[in-house]
Formats: sequence, C-alpha cells, structure tokens
Amino acid sequence: MQRIANLLVYKNGQVLLLKKPRRNWYVAPGGKMEPGESIFSAAVREYTEETNTTPIRPHLKGIYTMVIEEDGERIDEWMLFTFIARDLEGTPFKETKEGVLEWHPVEELEVLPMAEGDRTNLLFAVKEHGVQYGTFVYTPDFTLLKETIQQSSEGEVTNG
Amino acid sequence: MQRIANLLVYKNGQVLLLKKPRRNWYVAPGGKMEPGESIFSAAVREYTEETNTTPIRPHLKGIYTMVIEEDGERIDEWMLFTFIARDLEGTPFKETKEGVLEWHPVEELEVLPMAEGDRTNLLFAVKEHGVQYGTFVYTPDFTLLKETIQQSSEGEVTNG
Repeated sequence: MQRIANLLVYKNGQVLLLKKPRRNWYVAPGGKMEPGESIFSAAVREYTEETNTTPIRPHLKGIYTMVIEEDGERIDEWMLFTFIARDLEGTPFKETKEGVLEWHPVEELEVLPMAEGDRTNLLFAVKEHGVQYGTFVYTPDFTLLKETIQQSSEGEVTNG
Repeated sequence: MQRIANLLVYKNGQVLLLKKPRRNWYVAPGGKMEPGESIFSAAVREYTEETNTTPIRPHLKGIYTMVIEEDGERIDEWMLFTFIARDLEGTPFKETKEGVLEWHPVEELEVLPMAEGDRTNLLFAVKEHGVQYGTFVYTPDFTLLKETIQQSSEGEVTNG
C-alpha cells in the first residue's frame, strides 16, 4: 500500500504547483513515504526534494483513500495525505525531472487542468478549517468515478 | 499495509477504554480499515462495532507509523490513526469478545497498563491542540524501542 504525501504552499495569494509533463496536469509537490518514516517527515522531505525549498509550519489538511477501478474491479489503492503551509524558505526550482514549478493565483485552482479529486483536496486545504477525509474512485486514466467526503474540526480541548 | 483507526471518547472527565484480555493492557476501541473506506468512516464504524455507541463529531488527532523490529530487522509496519470525540450516543457494551469496556478518569491514562506509544497518543489526544505525527518502533512483545514525534496546528486561513 503506497502512502503519498503532498504539500501546497499558499503565500501572498498564490500557490506553488508542479505542472507534470505527461498531460500538463497540475499537482501539489510531493511523493512516496518511505518505510518507517512519519507522514509529516515524508511530506517535508518530498517537498524539499522536489522544490528546493523548506515549507514553514506545514499542517495536515486531508487524508484520502485513492482507488483505481477498471471494469468494476479495484485494481489499485493507496493513501494520499495533503498538507498546507503558509510560507517557505528558499528559492523554488524552475524545472525538475518531475515537471515545471509555477506560482498561480489561488483562484486558478478552480480551473487549472488537474485530477478532479486533487481539485477537491486543494480547494479544501486553502479555504476550510479542519481536516477532510474521503475516498476517490478513478478509472485507470484518472476520470473521477466517485468521491465521498467527510470533514471534522478541532473541538474544545477543555470540555472533557 | 494495515491501516488501523482508533478513537477515544473523552466526556465528563472520563475516557472509555477497552481492556484487552491477553495482558490487561488498555487501548482505545478501534480496528482495521477496509479496502476503499476512508479513515474517518473506518474509525466511526469500528468504534460503533466495538462499543455499541456512536461517537459525536470525531476528529483526527494523530497519524503514526508503527514498526515492529526484531534483531534490528523491520518485520512489520502499519499505520495508526487516532481520533477523539467529546461525546457519544448509546450505551456502551460492558464486555465483548475484544475485551472489557471501562470508563476511567482521564488522569489514569498516565498510569494504566498500555503500550507506551499508545500512552503518548492518547495523552496528546486529550490534552493538546492540533495533530501529532510520529514513528513508534517496538519489539515483537511491544517494548517501545524508539519514538519520534512531530506536531502541527491549524494556521490562519485568511493570510494566504
């Protein structure tokens, strides 16, 4: 079971996105968690490797169960963990083997080409309080078949 | 890769714990996520199955990488997701095949017999704001060899 962490930096009204070469779809930089690593450490490490920058005070915004179905059969499943940070240190790479790094006005998350589940995740990360959970079911070419979403927010810590 | 969700209800100064028969160690009720399920749905479903109650407004408090090592080799790894809720609906079972359900004053989390990593998780869940992340490395008989912890809290949503 793969565990993938990605991280969106949202600063001065802009988000730093990675444009992947295959279809020019945009993603938040990230990658695979290593064995024994915490998901937080994985998000920071992968972000730094992919962008040449260090995210400041990253925080978890979403946990997603990602499913690929073909002819009604589940052929792959992984977990996606989405973090946000409001600042970064360093100067991002312009281009890497993973793709092209670009700052975009946050409003463009609504319209840039990307997997539809990613749009749901990233808009939640920049707009909403709390944590989002859900399952996204895709075809092998990443047409979204179904999404099921939940969310929660921190309660009062003093009422126990 | 197993994904385990557990959930601690903390209400009126007490927490509902499950005493497992093998060593009389205490745990928060929970269990295995099913394929395609979200971790939130898994936490609620497993809690309800194990306790006969429904947690009210559960919220994620921790994501942990759990590792079993023997003679320096990693022999097992899974992910643990810990939720908290401040209320529940229904009357808990007294005893199930999983163990005995007991309310304990929250202070007893400091001293009740349990895996030491669980103590870290559950104390964080009841006492702290934000989300905790980490890796716990255990021997096969659950002696804690190493723990590495991070935490984060929600930033301002309006400063992007």
